[in-house]
Amino acid sequence: MTNLGTTSAELLIELDRSSRRPLHAQLEDGLREAVRSGRLPADGRLPASRALAADLGISRRLVVDAYAQLRAEGYLIARRGAGTYVAGAPAAPTAPAAEPPPTTPAFDFFPGYPDLASFPRRAWLRVLRETLREAPDRSFGYPDPRGAIELRVALAGHLARVRGVVADPESIVICAGAAQAFALLARTLAGAPMAVEDPGMPVHRAILTAHGAELVALPVDGEGARVEELTRGLAAGSALLTPAHQAPTGVVLSSERRAALLAWAGEGGRVVIEDDYDAEYRYDRAPLAAMQGLAPDRVIYTGTVSKTLAPALRLGWLVAPPRLLGTLVAQRLLADHGSPTIDQLALARLLESGAYDRHLRQARRRYRARRDALVAAVARHLPGARVTGLAAGLHALVRLPEPVDGRALARAAARDSVGVYPLGLSYLTPRPLDDGLVLGYANLAEPAIEEGIRRLARALRAPRPAPTNDGGAIAR
Amino acid sequence: MTNLGTTSAELLIELDRSSRRPLHAQLEDGLREAVRSGRLPADGRLPASRALAADLGISRRLVVDAYAQLRAEGYLIARRGAGTYVAGAPAAPTAPAAEPPPTTPAFDFFPGYPDLASFPRRAWLRVLRETLREAPDRSFGYPDPRGAIELRVALAGHLARVRGVVADPESIVICAGAAQAFALLARTLAGAPMAVEDPGMPVHRAILTAHGAELVALPVDGEGARVEELTRGLAAGSALLTPAHQAPTGVVLSSERRAALLAWAGEGGRVVIEDDYDAEYRYDRAPLAAMQGLAPDRVIYTGTVSKTLAPALRLGWLVAPPRLLGTLVAQRLLADHGSPTIDQLALARLLESGAYDRHLRQARRRYRARRDALVAAVARHLPGARVTGLAAGLHALVRLPEPVDGRALARAAARDSVGVYPLGLSYLTPRPLDDGLVLGYANLAEPAIEEGIRRLARALRAPRPAPTNDGGAIAR
Repeated sequence: MTNLGTTSAELLIELDRSSRRPLHAQLEDGLREAVRSGRLPADGRLPASRALAADLGISRRLVVDAYAQLRAEGYLIARRGAGTYVAGAPAAPTAPAAEPPPTTPAFDFFPGYPDLASFPRRAWLRVLRETLREAPDRSFGYPDPRGAIELRVALAGHLARVRGVVADPESIVICAGAAQAFALLARTLAGAPMAVEDPGMPVHRAILTAHGAELVALPVDGEGARVEELTRGLAAGSALLTPAHQAPTGVVLSSERRAALLAWAGEGGRVVIEDDYDAEYRYDRAPLAAMQGLAPDRVIYTGTVSKTLAPALRLGWLVAPPRLLGTLVAQRLLADHGSPTIDQLALARLLESGAYDRHLRQARRRYRARRDALVAAVARHLPGARVTGLAAGLHALVRLPEPVDGRALARAAARDSVGVYPLGLSYLTPRPLDDGLVLGYANLAEPAIEEGIRRLARALRAPRPAPTNDGGAIAR
Repeated sequence: MTNLGTTSAELLIELDRSSRRPLHAQLEDGLREAVRSGRLPADGRLPASRALAADLGISRRLVVDAYAQLRAEGYLIARRGAGTYVAGAPAAPTAPAAEPPPTTPAFDFFPGYPDLASFPRRAWLRVLRETLREAPDRSFGYPDPRGAIELRVALAGHLARVRGVVADPESIVICAGAAQAFALLARTLAGAPMAVEDPGMPVHRAILTAHGAELVALPVDGEGARVEELTRGLAAGSALLTPAHQAPTGVVLSSERRAALLAWAGEGGRVVIEDDYDAEYRYDRAPLAAMQGLAPDRVIYTGTVSKTLAPALRLGWLVAPPRLLGTLVAQRLLADHGSPTIDQLALARLLESGAYDRHLRQARRRYRARRDALVAAVARHLPGARVTGLAAGLHALVRLPEPVDGRALARAAARDSVGVYPLGLSYLTPRPLDDGLVLGYANLAEPAIEEGIRRLARALRAPRPAPTNDGGAIAR
């Protein structure tokens, strides 16, 4: 046991008598810090309480209590008749790491974003204020894992009116975004493979797989997912599709395939998961109603405010047939007990007040103009390119005149502050060489869209090494 | 194919020309509803568009468009030259189920609640208002899965000051309450058994097991968890403990066992999970600092606002050694992408402004008075009972003079509007016959505590069938 003959002066404990923090707490802080930093080394002996008290100009009682406190915490040990020592080996302090700077490019065509600048801050604050004024005290307890009844009632009406969804409040489970809905569904439907669109969303596939789903690929063509692969015997107990606006190609699932998909699900208790992520936006005519309304006994409907209000709210929902609800709610409880109640009550008020609909009408006008700006900019700067998937949603698919090395192009564009998202990386087996770019236009004003596409064209013209299509890792 | 000769009149489509909903949408709604309800039966033929238009007094174009819309959605099918028919079998409408009434007893000693009535509504609204006024637009995008940097910075300072936790912002992961922290930890630490306190929290065990943890029981006695079982060779790679106030017995882990636990963890790369759920409350002296401060390389610290502000906020955190952070953050991303950003920024402001500390100081005074009221009420109404676990937290353990059938007592008390929580049901193997009752006192005013204990005494005096200790299901 080392005896360094530590004196109080060496302890360098600074006591600030003008601080609101009590002296005993300051003393304990100082002692802990001295042990952690190694200034008081392992097995080192502490000054006698009387000596330290005299040096610091405080009562001995304070020092005795501080030593007792740190003994109870395990920082110090007492040896009978031999004083107080530093216990064991102190932990190395953790070095603070710097926060990496945000790396969002200035012209980011990230397809997952609505216009973040037009989040209805005032309307949201208003419904939060009303909620905090009027919610009963029990609203501050543990949430209902199904979601707040007020929100489920408001959503049932909204989804019926806007999307033709057949939902009653008891068939809805509020989720932390559609992302969590997929996690809960993977856990609930485990046991049979799940068909997912290819190309699709890599991050959704990662969520499904992490929660136990075995995925099989359903190719996508100009009419949407090739449902005939299912009816021809692709082994799957469920199928997750984006019928309103295929993610990421933007194709609408044809009516023939909708019918065939529901028929397939009707055989043998299968279910279709209808991811209706951006169906609020359809520009050239009224949106198609959701498939779920046709077959609520075999379609699970998922939706989110991530494309209508903000991803930061982490609010989404699923509508499921009664036979699956018990397991889904149990999984929600075991995930995190439920979504924050205040936010749910605020969203219910936003829906009931009509403010949500008003926001959507404004957003639709804004995004239609941005969509048109994208089409014009592509025509101007990328001759020979075609833009598809334009009828709905917040992103379009740009088909370049010839395949490019998507990763190299994305890197070149990023160096010019442009974010683009190669379609080839959305396949289960990524295709480095592909002619598709997935471009979200909702979060960029028209001049930024024009400038971003101009820079993209410049990046495309830059010479790059010849690419090949021999696989690679899944990006984003 | 049925031909019911449906006429427009039978369709009973009501169009309200004073409504803000456009006529075409009303027409589509009416047609969908007619198919779903079965009024238009499967394979039934629809009226010719011209006839329906005339009957409803609208242009034929509207009817043609509505039929086209419902064909695209799959509700209707067209037969070339033969008119429009209802497709396939319509779905049975889902019957709305009634919301069950809330069943919280009037005198509920639920141990998991702070005083819900004293949630700082005004302070919370203030920080929300500031956040919505000042947060940059990018705050409305997808959250940082680690948590908002502003909150991690504020928490690192708060936890160091109040709990002696060694944390830098990079070592913190914000979670949807401690519940989600346990789910992430179970997934991250899978591969070796996890020791959990017995008795402990059944809901936490359920979360851990659901996410892949294999649990082994660590008995609890008057000095806390029997750490010597670990050092004597109980096979476990991690151990989850509540050192500051054992849940549910209220015992404080002794300093000898703290040291032994850290030494055990130091051998072979094991980790201790320190669940510091209610350590902000300690009444008779300053709280013991968290163990994590002694050994941040082998202790994972978890905390929550559920006991300081409200469970409804679903905000908690974990502090972990660098080697585990990558996996924990990936698991968080795959669970739900992260916690709602606005709420996180609001909590950061509450911490930085000092309002959180002020709230805690008021709460500590309030709960100390309620604790004293519980002790007095037990002395008055339950002679022979002892109250333990009183030094800290929001609940105490009442030891009755003799064992009782916990479930029968809880049922009898519930009939008298009193909620009590038998200790016996907190064991891995539940003990129907036990002398312990876990009683939370923070969410009941003093008169309600007095009345609740009076009623509990009455329930105890009521004759009941003789109980036995032969197992049973885990409750709650």
